[in-house]
Amino acid sequence: MGTTQLETVPEPKYWHLKTVLTEALDSEFSVGEILPNERELAARFGVARATLRQALEQLELEGRLQRRRGVGTTVAPPRVGVAVGTQQHAWPGAAGDDWQAVDCAQSAPPAAVADALETGRDEPVHTVRRTRTSHGRPVAAELLYIPEASVPELSGIDAPSGPARARAVLRELHRLELEAEERSVELGSARADDAKELDRLPGAPVLVVTTRFVAEGRTAALSVATYRADTCRLTFGDSGNVEIHHGPERQAS
Amino acid sequence: MGTTQLETVPEPKYWHLKTVLTEALDSEFSVGEILPNERELAARFGVARATLRQALEQLELEGRLQRRRGVGTTVAPPRVGVAVGTQQHAWPGAAGDDWQAVDCAQSAPPAAVADALETGRDEPVHTVRRTRTSHGRPVAAELLYIPEASVPELSGIDAPSGPARARAVLRELHRLELEAEERSVELGSARADDAKELDRLPGAPVLVVTTRFVAEGRTAALSVATYRADTCRLTFGDSGNVEIHHGPERQAS
Repeated sequence: MGTTQLETVPEPKYWHLKTVLTEALDSEFSVGEILPNERELAARFGVARATLRQALEQLELEGRLQRRRGVGTTVAPPRVGVAVGTQQHAWPGAAGDDWQAVDCAQSAPPAAVADALETGRDEPVHTVRRTRTSHGRPVAAELLYIPEASVPELSGIDAPSGPARARAVLRELHRLELEAEERSVELGSARADDAKELDRLPGAPVLVVTTRFVAEGRTAALSVATYRADTCRLTFGDSGNVEIHHGPERQAS
Repeated sequence: MGTTQLETVPEPKYWHLKTVLTEALDSEFSVGEILPNERELAARFGVARATLRQALEQLELEGRLQRRRGVGTTVAPPRVGVAVGTQQHAWPGAAGDDWQAVDCAQSAPPAAVADALETGRDEPVHTVRRTRTSHGRPVAAELLYIPEASVPELSGIDAPSGPARARAVLRELHRLELEAEERSVELGSARADDAKELDRLPGAPVLVVTTRFVAEGRTAALSVATYRADTCRLTFGDSGNVEIHHGPERQAS
């Protein structure tokens, strides 16, 4: 278990404080409860404000605390499991999909996206914006990039923009036969527009899920989805029932 | 594209600074280069040290910067794609697996793990510690919990602990037929022992991948793997070739 190595690891002060705070959260506070302010907490645990703040940041990373504007620091509920890619080989917008189309525009994507789509750098693509909710709360915001070559028969007449246009683009995309999906997950920080939809501050830690949809041997669509890292646990596989939390004793009560 | 919404989003000062710094990183600095110290940077961009520090933290989250003890802040290389669960239905330690067994101990696991394994709270389980390297660098540390019921014929005689014991436990595990794998990914902070193996400070942001291995209708093993969030991009699917980075123009040169 490596416990013998622990003695040789320099433990920062905030790390020890984090452990003490975790125990206090488990024993004294309930979900949703507002913590005393930083000054009171620092005094109670006999630490500097800076040390306290570092420990609070750790607990926020681990999903134990939430800091909300105008509310303060509250004890977070357990993270919600959100299934990613459970329906193998399903197009975005397929039946049963729990995403809502918000908007659709036609513009040149970021250079890295253009490269992945193998479109020219200045070539406009359809950009569908979608959001995903779980238990009535926003959990993810997505930009779905679709080259014009993937939806050649799309008519521009009936809906020039908005959700109706987004749905029309997705309907056309579904004509292609999906051959493969490739997905990656990495840490990122919320862009200003995503942050707004996710009810977070710009720069908040997020999990960025990038999916490449392959049809007719090429990238037919590329999705960049931003999930709230504080409230979400992404699940993969058929049932996604991995119910392990990492706070000590978190499920003990 | 939501750009019309941008005006209504309150942009914190550090957010604007982050954009400016990103452009400077793209145009003036190369991978591995050490940034000027905080005082110099704050002076150059005309911001307070606290604002600068927030912007640097954002860029660290996005994998653009690395802060290393005794070195300072350097420009990070692009994240490495690390395949997770590409070999469907493969036991840990199967041929071709790029994990190294480090140690094995027998002890009572954390309560949440015991609950997932459906072992009693005080019942000892085999705990195999493994590490994973990619391109010669440590990318992940894992604790693999295996109830005694999953390896009933394991003899304790030949190797009581260490890598040999770990390999013996895995060999015994492979006798079971793997029926399903369920996986989740979430944000976490590095525990002290993991941090040491990953060459990070305790509390650094990590991606925690929890995998439940199902055999004979029950959880035969549970893996909690901690991946460096700064250097890794986790890939899923057969080829995992999603080569999109989120820094603007990051792949432009």
